[in-house]
Amino acid sequence: MLDILNSVLNKKKKLAIGLMSGTSLDGIDACLLEIEGNYTDTRINVIDFMTLDYTKEEKERIFKLCHIKTSTVDEICYMNTYLGNKMGQAALAVCQKAGVNIRDVDFISSHGQTIHHMPDQHSTLQIGELSNIAAVTGCVTAGDFRPSDMAYGGQGAPLVPYVDYILFSSKEKGRVLLNLGGIANITVLKAGGSEEDVLAFDTGPANVLIDEIVRIITDGEKAYDEGGKLASQGTIDEQWLDEIILNDKYLFKNPPKSTGREYYTKEFANGLYERGRIRGLSSHDILATVTAYTAKSIQLQLKSFVLNDCKIDELYVSGGGAHNQLIMKLLDQYIDAEVKNVSKLDFSGDAKEAIAFAILGNEFLSGRTNNIPNSTGSDRRVIMGKLALPTNNYIIPTAITLPQK
Amino acid sequence: MLDILNSVLNKKKKLAIGLMSGTSLDGIDACLLEIEGNYTDTRINVIDFMTLDYTKEEKERIFKLCHIKTSTVDEICYMNTYLGNKMGQAALAVCQKAGVNIRDVDFISSHGQTIHHMPDQHSTLQIGELSNIAAVTGCVTAGDFRPSDMAYGGQGAPLVPYVDYILFSSKEKGRVLLNLGGIANITVLKAGGSEEDVLAFDTGPANVLIDEIVRIITDGEKAYDEGGKLASQGTIDEQWLDEIILNDKYLFKNPPKSTGREYYTKEFANGLYERGRIRGLSSHDILATVTAYTAKSIQLQLKSFVLNDCKIDELYVSGGGAHNQLIMKLLDQYIDAEVKNVSKLDFSGDAKEAIAFAILGNEFLSGRTNNIPNSTGSDRRVIMGKLALPTNNYIIPTAITLPQK
Repeated sequence: MLDILNSVLNKKKKLAIGLMSGTSLDGIDACLLEIEGNYTDTRINVIDFMTLDYTKEEKERIFKLCHIKTSTVDEICYMNTYLGNKMGQAALAVCQKAGVNIRDVDFISSHGQTIHHMPDQHSTLQIGELSNIAAVTGCVTAGDFRPSDMAYGGQGAPLVPYVDYILFSSKEKGRVLLNLGGIANITVLKAGGSEEDVLAFDTGPANVLIDEIVRIITDGEKAYDEGGKLASQGTIDEQWLDEIILNDKYLFKNPPKSTGREYYTKEFANGLYERGRIRGLSSHDILATVTAYTAKSIQLQLKSFVLNDCKIDELYVSGGGAHNQLIMKLLDQYIDAEVKNVSKLDFSGDAKEAIAFAILGNEFLSGRTNNIPNSTGSDRRVIMGKLALPTNNYIIPTAITLPQK
Repeated sequence: MLDILNSVLNKKKKLAIGLMSGTSLDGIDACLLEIEGNYTDTRINVIDFMTLDYTKEEKERIFKLCHIKTSTVDEICYMNTYLGNKMGQAALAVCQKAGVNIRDVDFISSHGQTIHHMPDQHSTLQIGELSNIAAVTGCVTAGDFRPSDMAYGGQGAPLVPYVDYILFSSKEKGRVLLNLGGIANITVLKAGGSEEDVLAFDTGPANVLIDEIVRIITDGEKAYDEGGKLASQGTIDEQWLDEIILNDKYLFKNPPKSTGREYYTKEFANGLYERGRIRGLSSHDILATVTAYTAKSIQLQLKSFVLNDCKIDELYVSGGGAHNQLIMKLLDQYIDAEVKNVSKLDFSGDAKEAIAFAILGNEFLSGRTNNIPNSTGSDRRVIMGKLALPTNNYIIPTAITLPQK
């Protein structure tokens, strides 16, 4: 193992692929990048990025795995392998797009697809078998970071703040990094602050509820609200919005905290839709109000947990939700800071999470701790991750067909 | 990572713990041993062995995870962590028993608890989170071997033949190593044969059906037939035994092949019991016949797949079933070879699988391939395993309580 790892780890500049598949179940983000150095000396150069979309059938099957009533051990077992192969294919695809030979890639680092997350019981389940990624690509593969933090009493989330801190902290400006995936999360970087000053937590729902409402009001024709166009046609029911916010207990929990599809379920979205209908709202009004829910919940929690301690100058938004013009407009309206897309930091907002997991993998392979205990609640700094080795650099053609149940 | 691994891997003699928890759901076997060298130069010295039993409740909860109808994602997620912690406790317990400080242990290697195995779809699921084992013990932890073999088209089983070959092959004698866990498996080592000559496969049921029949006939009071005492009080219904054998399609499949609880289900055992009752048999007669099923299926498959090519002088039995006197008597009667307990090779039959997984971990950490493609059906030799790192050598007290559903 030492020989294999030496050949990767003793390089000054490593070619890496970060893989991310979020709770919004869009697909697998793959980012090809160069990484130099560690911790606050980490320097990156993004070469290419792409998303290998999940098909409708894949989404449905993964969705079933995430829910207690529809999940079964055989499907979890099978989809773990299936997604591992597909994640390997995503890595091959981003190389092909960039004209880079996969054999030149030093390592892959994969978040995996979360199918369950139980922060209070320190248990989490990400699938997308690392052994399959290693076999399909012939690359050293790191991944499965969250369980390590949880083993030391952490919530296994959020993990990106470590990367936000080492890449984006500023001596002069107070910054918030906001990622709008299925769930919304923030990293607060105090001007001139240390790692111990980093505060980060999931603020609540983002696309997870918006997408579900879109599916309901378009009869399943659309999976998401492109650019926030549908929501922008509606009017926010401010009174109902306040009611929604007040009824969401998660928003009033003290950080560190994290959440997921276990809390913001399909039934949760259905309930919102039904309530909107009872209030006599149009489909667009319901969607506008649920979209505002995301922005409002962020405003509320910045006020409750952040602004007393820390001045915020800039708020940088990344993730799929950064394309939603209504969310961006509302954030600008609700929050007293410059609201910008993270691309303003020369950093692709879509690629941000995939880049983050490549960096977490780089730290893991370097034997470095890569969590922030303040953010996750763990009792110490932890070397998060697992490692799988390829057998050799010969790529096998792996069929990734999806057999019927 | 290199520093951490160097400190383990550059030692001539390593102190290791192998952890095994089989399909019979008895508990977690933990073997503390010294390992020197690699491959056919591997030398071991067993220091201590113990089994940390599963409680009745733990068994029931794991059992539910193994079955499609009763499995749910939250329980799989939670029990993965729970069992990881318990496996860590088993490692601590065997050290305590031996009077060895866990901080002197160089690595742990864990098989995990199989909750599903789909050989034809190259998917398998072992739980018992490696990150938790590493956290509880503060040791470098290897494990989760089967998915790697499957990623290269293998069945992920059997894996012990690699270890049987490097430890037990003989220039003069043809040997069969038979392990009687939940499932029975054999390794055939031709006299003077090479690794390529090794033939190994699961022969079918062992304790998985016997234990279930015992549960039925004792109304759940007993979980297994100690020493085969209950079965020895019955008479084998030879005609029915032939019928059972002829109806078991698995026995007639060509190797490489593997099987599990997915095939030899609770319903399978119930069906046997009902059929025995219809034939007017006593409880003891039914148990005797089902016990003979194991021995007879081994005889049949040695005839069909082994004896044409290879003379067998000795058959060494290990695993829980080696304590069943009726099975041992029947094997002696059915098979034309010396039938002995594997302890005759100065090797504890109970500890054999735990030892085997410690050796597989040693090969993995050495960056060596550790499967036999002939046995698993994979398209090449594979470096099987995954690695999790401890954060430091300080052991946290991890509560392993089992909350109610």
